[in-house]
Amino acid sequence: MRLSRLLRFQALLYNKNEKRLAAAVKHMVGSKPFNLSLYKLAIKHVSVADEYINGLKISNERLEFLGDAVLGTIVAEFLFLKFPYRDEGFLTETRSRIVNREALNQIAMKIGLSKLINDEMRGKNVSSHKSIYGDTLEALVGAVYLDRGYSFTKTFILKRIIIHFDVDDIINTTNNFKSKLIEWSQKEGKEIDFNLVSVSGSQRFKEFLVEIKLKEEIIAEGKGATKKKAEQEASKNACEKLNIPI
Amino acid sequence: MRLSRLLRFQALLYNKNEKRLAAAVKHMVGSKPFNLSLYKLAIKHVSVADEYINGLKISNERLEFLGDAVLGTIVAEFLFLKFPYRDEGFLTETRSRIVNREALNQIAMKIGLSKLINDEMRGKNVSSHKSIYGDTLEALVGAVYLDRGYSFTKTFILKRIIIHFDVDDIINTTNNFKSKLIEWSQKEGKEIDFNLVSVSGSQRFKEFLVEIKLKEEIIAEGKGATKKKAEQEASKNACEKLNIPI
Repeated sequence: MRLSRLLRFQALLYNKNEKRLAAAVKHMVGSKPFNLSLYKLAIKHVSVADEYINGLKISNERLEFLGDAVLGTIVAEFLFLKFPYRDEGFLTETRSRIVNREALNQIAMKIGLSKLINDEMRGKNVSSHKSIYGDTLEALVGAVYLDRGYSFTKTFILKRIIIHFDVDDIINTTNNFKSKLIEWSQKEGKEIDFNLVSVSGSQRFKEFLVEIKLKEEIIAEGKGATKKKAEQEASKNACEKLNIPI
Repeated sequence: MRLSRLLRFQALLYNKNEKRLAAAVKHMVGSKPFNLSLYKLAIKHVSVADEYINGLKISNERLEFLGDAVLGTIVAEFLFLKFPYRDEGFLTETRSRIVNREALNQIAMKIGLSKLINDEMRGKNVSSHKSIYGDTLEALVGAVYLDRGYSFTKTFILKRIIIHFDVDDIINTTNNFKSKLIEWSQKEGKEIDFNLVSVSGSQRFKEFLVEIKLKEEIIAEGKGATKKKAEQEASKNACEKLNIPI
């Protein structure tokens, strides 16, 4: 890390824009950057990238790939330790609710990353790129990881990203349409049947088709990559059809 | 880590089975375990797990969830650094070829983990659980991560797992059916058309249907969660129909 610290002397030579970016990084991440160029890259959306090296457009997409993995791991460990008595299905589902695009978009706005992006995109239409904030947040995580290492990134994510989530609330707000539907059927004393109609597709892209019957009449269908997903989709459709509040 | 080192004194009290497991871990991972119970858990397949705590069956599935994330991150960084001029699509695709079930099964056999599993599963049918070796390898990665930290795990994965892959060979062995088909059509002087027929499903489960026409006649169809995947699937079917070697 000593070499990295030396990089800090570059700060003496920062121009006005670079100084502003370094200050913003310190604000968001909690510490000044060692290697500012990583953060410059992290906020470079592909739509404003115009430099090519060896045929590759220089944008934040590679950092996003890396940051997505790092974020996923740190959230995985956080949930693993927080919920010692929940199974891996619960952990997977909860993680996907935390690291989904919409949630990350919100966090990017909360930590002020969106402002930086808006400045960077000046004159371009940010709203046409729906997930730009969340994608850039992932790229930022990738930059922090390369700049400061895993342990620093973990602290950054735990203290400055996950803190914005009410994890218990996320868990309680289930979108479990199947249980909603079953609950309704029991309350109303009506019989609901789930039938797996078909499994199609190849080994890699399986598709399950599930139908739901109410008193022998098919009221809804759903498709999905797993039986569970197909049942959820079918249940959602059934809830809509039966006007069950979801 | 000092506390972890103290755990090593537990080794004085290991029974015969524990000694054998500790030796096997040292052989596979490169260092004796600090906390042997993590490794005991890592090789506990759900089919031989019979202990329950708070309603949770105590098996390696939670460790597998964690290890999958850690492995994905370390392979992501490895590829990010190895291929500075390749885009994120290439990185994603290459990673998925490295961390797929079949490849991990092979590695588990190469490092001797499969032997440990076979012993653990004594009397049970290992072959009925196709991905047991690869799954356990991921759980082992999770155990190493919790036992020894990120940096140690990274060295373990780079020096003892990735080393078994010929990454350049993996990249060159493409299963790019679309380019195979286009190559064939150019060589044969025949016109091939790709048409996106429909996009169905909900926001979460989109399904693209692509058809391929040869001289205005539909010769193959393919479905997939993205247009690219649907094209690949359709191209694969077309290659089979046209007897193009793949």
